[in-house]
Amino acid sequence: MSGTMWTDTIIAVDWGTTNRRAYRLNPDGRCEAEFEDAKGITGVEAGAFPAAIAEIRDRLGDHPLLMAGMIGSNRGWVEVPYVHCPAGADDLAGHLIFIEEERAAIVPGLSFLGENRADVMRGEEVQLFGAVAAGLVPPDCLVCHPGTHNKWAMLKGGRVTRFRTIMTGELFSLLQNRSILADWLDTPVEPGEAFDKGVAQGLRGDALTAELFGVRAGVLLGRLEQAHAASFTSGLLIGADLRTGLSDATSGTEIIVMGRPELTHLYAAGLERCGRSAREVDGERAFIAGIRQIAGNIR
Amino acid sequence: MSGTMWTDTIIAVDWGTTNRRAYRLNPDGRCEAEFEDAKGITGVEAGAFPAAIAEIRDRLGDHPLLMAGMIGSNRGWVEVPYVHCPAGADDLAGHLIFIEEERAAIVPGLSFLGENRADVMRGEEVQLFGAVAAGLVPPDCLVCHPGTHNKWAMLKGGRVTRFRTIMTGELFSLLQNRSILADWLDTPVEPGEAFDKGVAQGLRGDALTAELFGVRAGVLLGRLEQAHAASFTSGLLIGADLRTGLSDATSGTEIIVMGRPELTHLYAAGLERCGRSAREVDGERAFIAGIRQIAGNIR
Repeated sequence: MSGTMWTDTIIAVDWGTTNRRAYRLNPDGRCEAEFEDAKGITGVEAGAFPAAIAEIRDRLGDHPLLMAGMIGSNRGWVEVPYVHCPAGADDLAGHLIFIEEERAAIVPGLSFLGENRADVMRGEEVQLFGAVAAGLVPPDCLVCHPGTHNKWAMLKGGRVTRFRTIMTGELFSLLQNRSILADWLDTPVEPGEAFDKGVAQGLRGDALTAELFGVRAGVLLGRLEQAHAASFTSGLLIGADLRTGLSDATSGTEIIVMGRPELTHLYAAGLERCGRSAREVDGERAFIAGIRQIAGNIR
Repeated sequence: MSGTMWTDTIIAVDWGTTNRRAYRLNPDGRCEAEFEDAKGITGVEAGAFPAAIAEIRDRLGDHPLLMAGMIGSNRGWVEVPYVHCPAGADDLAGHLIFIEEERAAIVPGLSFLGENRADVMRGEEVQLFGAVAAGLVPPDCLVCHPGTHNKWAMLKGGRVTRFRTIMTGELFSLLQNRSILADWLDTPVEPGEAFDKGVAQGLRGDALTAELFGVRAGVLLGRLEQAHAASFTSGLLIGADLRTGLSDATSGTEIIVMGRPELTHLYAAGLERCGRSAREVDGERAFIAGIRQIAGNIR
């Protein structure tokens, strides 16, 4: 299969569960046009994926197309087998699944099989390798990638050696939308005293499922201001998250927080509370670099 | 106010968030008739509570009525102030809020204010004191009361000295109905190998929010059978719950698990996994005894 065309203009799609973002990348790797909409995989009916990519090409041009994320999951278009860790960028390029010959492919996710635990990711791997390729992160570091499911990934020599997923974002969203705490979690989450207090409690890791109910009791009994409940609860979950993520990090490990700025900001604040500084990296830039790199390796 | 009538036939209502159970109790305290329906406090419109109790009397007779549970919360009919711990059965009787003079009252809940935490309960307190009064539990013991929000209550001399709430039931329900794990959590939860494995992990208390995502990864990568995912996840949450609850219990403390038999059964299995035996007590019997006791103390 000739890969020449993949070094011309291409379209990159970050196709998640509830949203998709598509970018037209010129041969230099710069993004010329983009859009985001709510047609995540759960918003596309079975059999409607060909139409869904035709629509992307209508908007961004008739170019070769590389897709990553939940589009390759058992709930997506075609299930693409995971590449096992340790894995590097070349492993992704070598295990693409082509939907249209030479014209459209899905990037595989990564899996980790440890002695006592297993883990999977789909989508973040493109950002991880892209960030290294673009020099946004060093080849050896610990990356925290907050989102619906936060990923802590250990990079060694630019390869992902292991990673761990934490359900922080999804749990906060369930609590905010559906739980007995829902009425009090609709205020914006902000770093500050209440957030810090939550982080400190979460870091102790004593009793998360008790401390979550403690938010309700605290507000009812006047120990926690209702306006601070969301920040405190987010801090509690992020503190528990940091506790697990940092358990992997020796003191010299450089920590990077990558993803959407509003989330990396909160995690960086939490890390500061632990006495660890962290550099924030924009996940979108890393994604574009990652797709460009994979496209350049298609042979 | 004359309390004589409260020693005659009365109606007891356990009025929760999503359900209510009503019992007609004869002067001996025996339940002669009962019903349960979905008219929990969220199923009754503002202003419709008088009609909702008229309906109870249509079905069970025109008797004095004692209500307990979320009916006394800020989302219920009338907000009844909490009685602070340590508290006994007489404190409940002394702080009823009468809706109809001498004819209908709401039992207060309990609150606990510790140095570092606060807690509240509404409804379980009637069962706790009722269980002591009926000789179902000893006056000194640790009671685990599983439900949407599990309560661990320490009884000393028949009084509740402190308690702690854990959001186990609600979290399991959110995960089962709304999370990325939802598809795999609709099988029955049963004690057994997968449940025990979950309990053991939850007891270690390392990383609950990571281990929950581990259920998804484990099934996808063939480490956990899909049919066992619900039992394992329930075990994980119950293990974390027991870890917190037992942190209060010295080795000699007798442990009682009280509530609905399908839940007490699971917690008893989890406790056995920790090397602690627990006696199971039916919560409904304790509720009836508790209401009868409060009614008998109305002066």
